[in-house]
Amino acid sequence: MKFSEIIEKLGSSIVAHSLTTHSDSDPEIAGVAAIDEATPNTISYAESNKFAVLIGSTAASALILPSNEDLQAKAEARGIAWVSVRHPRLAFAQTIALYYHPFKPAPVIHHTAVIDPSAEIGENVAIGANVVIQTGAKIGAGVVIHPNVVIYPDVQIGDRTVLHANCSIQERTHIGADCVIHCGAVIGSEGFGFVPTREGWLKMEQSGYTVLEDGVEVGCNSAIDRPAVGETRIGRNTKIDNLVQIGHGVKVGEACAFASGCGIAGGTQIGNRVILAGQVGVANNAKMGDGSVASAKAGVHKDVPAGQTVSGYPAVEHKVYLKASAMYHRLYEMYLSIKQIKKHLGID
Amino acid sequence: MKFSEIIEKLGSSIVAHSLTTHSDSDPEIAGVAAIDEATPNTISYAESNKFAVLIGSTAASALILPSNEDLQAKAEARGIAWVSVRHPRLAFAQTIALYYHPFKPAPVIHHTAVIDPSAEIGENVAIGANVVIQTGAKIGAGVVIHPNVVIYPDVQIGDRTVLHANCSIQERTHIGADCVIHCGAVIGSEGFGFVPTREGWLKMEQSGYTVLEDGVEVGCNSAIDRPAVGETRIGRNTKIDNLVQIGHGVKVGEACAFASGCGIAGGTQIGNRVILAGQVGVANNAKMGDGSVASAKAGVHKDVPAGQTVSGYPAVEHKVYLKASAMYHRLYEMYLSIKQIKKHLGID
Amino acid sequence: MKFSEIIEKLGSSIVAHSLTTHSDSDPEIAGVAAIDEATPNTISYAESNKFAVLIGSTAASALILPSNEDLQAKAEARGIAWVSVRHPRLAFAQTIALYYHPFKPAPVIHHTAVIDPSAEIGENVAIGANVVIQTGAKIGAGVVIHPNVVIYPDVQIGDRTVLHANCSIQERTHIGADCVIHCGAVIGSEGFGFVPTREGWLKMEQSGYTVLEDGVEVGCNSAIDRPAVGETRIGRNTKIDNLVQIGHGVKVGEACAFASGCGIAGGTQIGNRVILAGQVGVANNAKMGDGSVASAKAGVHKDVPAGQTVSGYPAVEHKVYLKASAMYHRLYEMYLSIKQIKKHLGID
Repeated sequence: MKFSEIIEKLGSSIVAHSLTTHSDSDPEIAGVAAIDEATPNTISYAESNKFAVLIGSTAASALILPSNEDLQAKAEARGIAWVSVRHPRLAFAQTIALYYHPFKPAPVIHHTAVIDPSAEIGENVAIGANVVIQTGAKIGAGVVIHPNVVIYPDVQIGDRTVLHANCSIQERTHIGADCVIHCGAVIGSEGFGFVPTREGWLKMEQSGYTVLEDGVEVGCNSAIDRPAVGETRIGRNTKIDNLVQIGHGVKVGEACAFASGCGIAGGTQIGNRVILAGQVGVANNAKMGDGSVASAKAGVHKDVPAGQTVSGYPAVEHKVYLKASAMYHRLYEMYLSIKQIKKHLGID
Repeated sequence: MKFSEIIEKLGSSIVAHSLTTHSDSDPEIAGVAAIDEATPNTISYAESNKFAVLIGSTAASALILPSNEDLQAKAEARGIAWVSVRHPRLAFAQTIALYYHPFKPAPVIHHTAVIDPSAEIGENVAIGANVVIQTGAKIGAGVVIHPNVVIYPDVQIGDRTVLHANCSIQERTHIGADCVIHCGAVIGSEGFGFVPTREGWLKMEQSGYTVLEDGVEVGCNSAIDRPAVGETRIGRNTKIDNLVQIGHGVKVGEACAFASGCGIAGGTQIGNRVILAGQVGVANNAKMGDGSVASAKAGVHKDVPAGQTVSGYPAVEHKVYLKASAMYHRLYEMYLSIKQIKKHLGID
Repeated sequence: MKFSEIIEKLGSSIVAHSLTTHSDSDPEIAGVAAIDEATPNTISYAESNKFAVLIGSTAASALILPSNEDLQAKAEARGIAWVSVRHPRLAFAQTIALYYHPFKPAPVIHHTAVIDPSAEIGENVAIGANVVIQTGAKIGAGVVIHPNVVIYPDVQIGDRTVLHANCSIQERTHIGADCVIHCGAVIGSEGFGFVPTREGWLKMEQSGYTVLEDGVEVGCNSAIDRPAVGETRIGRNTKIDNLVQIGHGVKVGEACAFASGCGIAGGTQIGNRVILAGQVGVANNAKMGDGSVASAKAGVHKDVPAGQTVSGYPAVEHKVYLKASAMYHRLYEMYLSIKQIKKHLGID
């Protein structure tokens, strides 16, 4: 497709009025690429002045740029066609979608799938080889279930949701519409609930269930437990990366994003639009307010007010952390200074 | 069931002699609930004065309370029926079991299961769809194997053990009686054993095997490796949460509990009744004594004496950690103070 | 096999010229064992003086020792046959291989495997029960695919590679020759790419793919994502342990080793022979140079020069970390000292 066609397609939706093209070129664009790996006849994008050097060296034939005249001039100077938009990464995502046709199985039920007669299966559902769907399950329209998925009894799956290979959906789980559960993830598993007794740990039955609202994604090999009573709930549009643990009875709000390796202890309450960077842990007596953020590897053990960013272990306000962690490598030097001062003063 | 029936059933086992009921009520109890999510005609529980506010607002019709007259009076004042026991959470677990009937597949072997003729299968075993059981495996009586589980050769599974969907039990693993292996867990996998050579990493064959004693639980997507020689062993009644890694040759004692995200390096020795909170790491030169505890995210890199609680990274005694971590956010302030003192004294 | 036969087999390859045997004994060796768990008629090994005590108590009939006369004399004194080599652990790995015959399925295709007619399957391939191989996949010669593995479309698997049970290989992934993918691992899954919009998170399609070069191992339940554009690449001979996350677009060099629980954020570049100990996190703006090392639980958030070892969170040079962390438990004491000095000086 010609570059001008891409512009036309982007322009109809979110492209800002600063939309322009390099006067002399309308290259044929064969695909999309990262700016530092681009080959001729691909399109890439830049977000800020950090990309300036890469614009100077990229082999891309076209670029999506922000409203930044320096970057535009740099592209122009190298004869790279460009378009300026308000949100280059968003426009790049839309451009990828023009070229990429994701793998989607045909809406047929493979003859090796084992489906209990009591299960209700919607229209246009794709069910892969060796999928197992047990009693009382309700599968919405347009759902895609990849091979070797196991669905326990009384599960509900909303329309157009995708379950990738080898994932397990345990009993009574409700998954909303337009969700994606990636390979190996487990939803609705038993919470880690044991009562100490003289004879050892006694299992507390986990009679509750897990709810994923619409548009939730759960990454590969992540696990979301169900509680002893009541529900574990993940709010609409929340995105969860690979290898994340969500404990029993956790309540997560809408449009959160949790990066890989996070763990949220049982019973924790997380607001809307909360962001957890990689390998964060949230203890079970902590509440995180709307729009709060925990930096990578933070150990959150007490309430985080709405809008606040916390870092470190134990997690403190980010600006406090920055100062404290900058001092960390000076700890020994500080120790020696104190010793020296005490000696100087003759005190102990 | 009437509240009085619940009391009768609890009373026959562990309920203390302080068992009483609210004089005016014997409500019909339809189910169990968390105290802050309860609806009328449910029963919930409270453990301590922390719950006092919730007793003031819960909609539950009955409560399991400790021997705490304040809490009892609070419930009484709101017309909530109550029973007093020594261990409310234990009694609540027993009450859940009165209402909840966990999903348990019928003891039949699904026709799609692929079972090697050399495998020995006990009485009353449930084997789900697409389960694969390979040569020489021995499956005890009453075992439940959920769909899509793969059992490698020469595995032994004790009576009544449950293997959830999509888990993998590798060669020569011994699993005891009354164990539960949750979805996606892998038991007996190859230890991470490589020898550096001039040509790169050379694989050390992992000829050992993994043993889980009776009553062990292993959470979703956890992995317990086998060693190059000898065995990895998890003691009786030890409970392991989701996404936990147990390295090759680790020896874990009885009645331990490891929360989600923990990693135990190869060769480590862990005593009895050891508790690891979430995301703890234990290095391979560390031994943890009986009854020791590591707080969330602790990095244990040296021996922990029996009964000691350690916290932090590097892990130190908990009381030392509390003082040090409270100082962490004052590090910059301390640095400035030292600078000020030195200036004041004219030293450098 | 007699001890002298073991020596003969080791000697033909890497055993140093210091090869000797105890003059009086040539025991029959029935198997291999760890030195502290050995029984009579087994062979074990020792690497350094740390093993001296164990040589004094082991029941092994033979030992592989380094060129260390003290250890040799200790073994001699107890009548233990021994051989001295330059690299005892390497020789022990080779000795294990003399005794251990790893489970390897016969090269047949199980009748329950579901293989798309467009897939190309090499010679002598073992394909287990319920394996699913989709359109356009190319499977090399001598490949072993254990039961319940799912291979998405257009995947390429090199010769002799082993895929363990329940793992998932997503679309367009290239896996080289002589790789091992352990149970439950997911390769080529969608990167965690979402663009914030007013309506919430918008999915950025992940049109790229993942490449594992020859000789790569990926541990149980680990996940290696593919990027929006371009490739994620793991270099030749790199070994990855269980429960490791490799983000979209990460480039990893050759002969690295990543221990369990590590997470590498999207876009990160890791050189050759880099070692990450357990639970390390590497942020996406960090590059790690050739031969660099991150200690357990390190949080790497900026570039690490070639050859450097970093530790701590935030990660700093290891020697700086050692001094700082040794001071950590003295933080409160330091705080009190500063207070005392200020009081003494009458300043505030």
